[in-house]
Amino acid sequence: MTGSQDAARAEEDTTPTLRLQPPCERLSGCHKSGVCSRSYFWVVMVFFHVYILNVIALLFYVHYSSGQEDASRSRDAPGGGRPDAARPPSGAEFVRDVSLTRIDGIRVGHVQKVSLVKGKVHEMRTLSLKPLLFEIPGFLSDDECRVVMQLAQLKGLMESQLMVQDGQEELAKELNLSPEEIFNLLDINQDGQLQLHEILTHSRVRDGIWLTPENLREIYAGLNADKNNDGLLNLKEFRLLSSDAFQHFLLQRGVKRSQLVRNSRHTWLYQGEGAHQVLQDIKERVTRLTRLPSTIVDLSEPLQVVRYEEGGHYHAHRDSGPVYPETACTHTLLAANTSTPFETSCRYITVLFYLNTVDGGGETAFPVADNRTYDEMSLIQNDVDLLDTRRNCDKSNLRVRPTKGTAVFWYNYLSDGKGWVGEQDEYSLHGGCVVTRGTKWVANKWINVDPDYQRQARYQQLVSQLPQDESDEGPALNAETQRSSVHQEL
Amino acid sequence: MTGSQDAARAEEDTTPTLRLQPPCERLSGCHKSGVCSRSYFWVVMVFFHVYILNVIALLFYVHYSSGQEDASRSRDAPGGGRPDAARPPSGAEFVRDVSLTRIDGIRVGHVQKVSLVKGKVHEMRTLSLKPLLFEIPGFLSDDECRVVMQLAQLKGLMESQLMVQDGQEELAKELNLSPEEIFNLLDINQDGQLQLHEILTHSRVRDGIWLTPENLREIYAGLNADKNNDGLLNLKEFRLLSSDAFQHFLLQRGVKRSQLVRNSRHTWLYQGEGAHQVLQDIKERVTRLTRLPSTIVDLSEPLQVVRYEEGGHYHAHRDSGPVYPETACTHTLLAANTSTPFETSCRYITVLFYLNTVDGGGETAFPVADNRTYDEMSLIQNDVDLLDTRRNCDKSNLRVRPTKGTAVFWYNYLSDGKGWVGEQDEYSLHGGCVVTRGTKWVANKWINVDPDYQRQARYQQLVSQLPQDESDEGPALNAETQRSSVHQEL
Repeated sequence: MTGSQDAARAEEDTTPTLRLQPPCERLSGCHKSGVCSRSYFWVVMVFFHVYILNVIALLFYVHYSSGQEDASRSRDAPGGGRPDAARPPSGAEFVRDVSLTRIDGIRVGHVQKVSLVKGKVHEMRTLSLKPLLFEIPGFLSDDECRVVMQLAQLKGLMESQLMVQDGQEELAKELNLSPEEIFNLLDINQDGQLQLHEILTHSRVRDGIWLTPENLREIYAGLNADKNNDGLLNLKEFRLLSSDAFQHFLLQRGVKRSQLVRNSRHTWLYQGEGAHQVLQDIKERVTRLTRLPSTIVDLSEPLQVVRYEEGGHYHAHRDSGPVYPETACTHTLLAANTSTPFETSCRYITVLFYLNTVDGGGETAFPVADNRTYDEMSLIQNDVDLLDTRRNCDKSNLRVRPTKGTAVFWYNYLSDGKGWVGEQDEYSLHGGCVVTRGTKWVANKWINVDPDYQRQARYQQLVSQLPQDESDEGPALNAETQRSSVHQEL
Repeated sequence: MTGSQDAARAEEDTTPTLRLQPPCERLSGCHKSGVCSRSYFWVVMVFFHVYILNVIALLFYVHYSSGQEDASRSRDAPGGGRPDAARPPSGAEFVRDVSLTRIDGIRVGHVQKVSLVKGKVHEMRTLSLKPLLFEIPGFLSDDECRVVMQLAQLKGLMESQLMVQDGQEELAKELNLSPEEIFNLLDINQDGQLQLHEILTHSRVRDGIWLTPENLREIYAGLNADKNNDGLLNLKEFRLLSSDAFQHFLLQRGVKRSQLVRNSRHTWLYQGEGAHQVLQDIKERVTRLTRLPSTIVDLSEPLQVVRYEEGGHYHAHRDSGPVYPETACTHTLLAANTSTPFETSCRYITVLFYLNTVDGGGETAFPVADNRTYDEMSLIQNDVDLLDTRRNCDKSNLRVRPTKGTAVFWYNYLSDGKGWVGEQDEYSLHGGCVVTRGTKWVANKWINVDPDYQRQARYQQLVSQLPQDESDEGPALNAETQRSSVHQEL
């Protein structure tokens, strides 16, 4: 038999350089062997087609897989990244397969074009590098601004900060600190005396009333606390005061809303499935803008809509807390196994939308933006308190005027240098200047990411395992509503 | 005949779920048709193997191509990136397939570990973000420092700046400007008078003698230029001076080396094939450090070794020029088709090595590092000149002390936001403070990149087409020596 020779010839025919002659014509006798049979021809054709199909399929795979890499890595791909929930086995260590894009600011004043809405190009201007802060005029249309304000009004806005109650539990009491210990904590420069700014720095953290140097002097006088009248409290003078003496005094005298840390009303608008199309569009646009995985944006807090009346303000603060190993993030607490004494908002990004153009005041101030160094102590001095947005907005390094439809966004955390969230950015300090004329409407979209990747992954896995499909059928307890109830407290 | 049915069965056999029975056993009669023949079996086996080999080859391709993408994109891959010379057709537009890595500074004080030498981990600390500046202690070993200094001494060092000659051609003369036009150019604040700092700002650009406010006053007195003695020159007073009056006066009086912009000696050390192993190692290490394509580092200037004697200095300057469309880069000029009136060094990165620990002074000063804003005018004021490293180093924002073996490196250009070189970084201003005790030895490795990608690509293509292999045979004119002769002038 000539089988092996024929096979060798047959092999020749399968090489990519296709020869168009039918195999029969090349052999001397067509009836000689099975190689010439119709069945042989069919076998060749079928194999050839299967082979070609496989090559095409593999080329598609190559293209598709490198395309995915592009999307998750490239800084230019808007809204890229694949969702990373529900993949790794529970209990085990999650392997991080997603990198968080961080947009490059290049330099202050740099403008880059971004594609957020079909058929429109937005300009994104770098306002500062510390914090990394951008401004996008026309991010929302006038109609969208109107819809958001109307939806918020329909839902109803509540006071952003309740009036302070007398006799509240104090952290100092809880921690069982002696007056000497408290004095020592307050006495930052350790000179044995409490300067006004030392009291002010600490009072900000503790309660909701905003102290100024003037009303601190008033309190001293009212309580006869500063016996020798030098504007300083020594340990002897401090010891004579009860721990809630200042607050008690102020409440007795009566506290106005303008004396609070925050004087505004706000509400939360759900942005998931079934929400008003404008709200879903905004969420989608934010995903494109920030270039973060959509899962992360989807699992973030609802949209917060805030209204400041004339005279309203929000003293300088940070939207997010510092990262310590023992600090838990509010949004991933659901998935945490441990209970923790410290809890903070973990908001990687703040997107702030101006829903109207304010007649007077109401700027967003960044007191220390792009300062060469950050010095906590230099923020509050006896004469000037840079955190006070009712008085000292003009001394802030950067102020953004509220213009209808404009969005600004900034990063509240630095990068960890490895594609995830790192330390808190101290420079992200900001506040709402007092509204001198008219009303100010803004909305906040916070994007929650836990600086601890494991906790974030565990949370995303947990949420992905909750029943999702019920949300179509009725107001069942799905992941989104569960989360909403958590966010409600914010 | 049953050909078509058999073919259908044969197709079944090629599906990935391999069945181990030989085809004959599945048919009732083995001698029935050609499907059972040895030739059929050979055909199946050959096709099957070709198919499997193709699948394997394609999988290799997938793996290999995504691996390459990793290397050129990942910020962590040291020395990654493929050389991009000699690929695109000449004359045509080059398509950019390489992204320049820019290391993330995160924040001032951030420390990242880097692997530069086998078996050793270096720490890289962020010193400033504007410019993006890092310090790596122990980058060079003591032996390497010694070898570099010895090689430089063997080659011989020349004065970094020649003494200024009287009667040099002046740009103003070349451009044929009238005294009125020059006056207008100098009068920055357009108040009709020339303040001292207005003269100083411009004299820096023009000639090699460093003017101080004091010797400017001396010149005024000597030339009787300032008739009304108010420290200002008005147009009438200015018109009475010849264009080289200041320089002429100073040269008549005698100029000391300490009055020059730069008071040091230097030489260049070739780092290509055949160079001392230490020099080649340093180049290789710089490639790993900067994570730039090795082609770019290979085609950069040789190593510059500089010696400052006691009293030596280098007033504040930038290593690289600003980017204008009509400005050509010195290193790509070879490949440029056009002649251009403006030419500048295009040094994307400066790597500065300290070869010894200086006994006193000699710090590298960055006067405006991390300033909130950059203001050219505030650099030189009538009383303090921040550019003067003989007097005002103590007023610089940042000073790096020279420590043997330490390397610092910074970017002289910003990113363009698309993976290539963008605008000049104004903050990259730096100088060498006066050496108050002992000698200071440093080396500079500049990495040349043309902000115009097309010019860079054309240059790389040209160099890759020059005969390379002759360099082994003798001192032929190869690319490297050609380039050296260009760099010699620097």
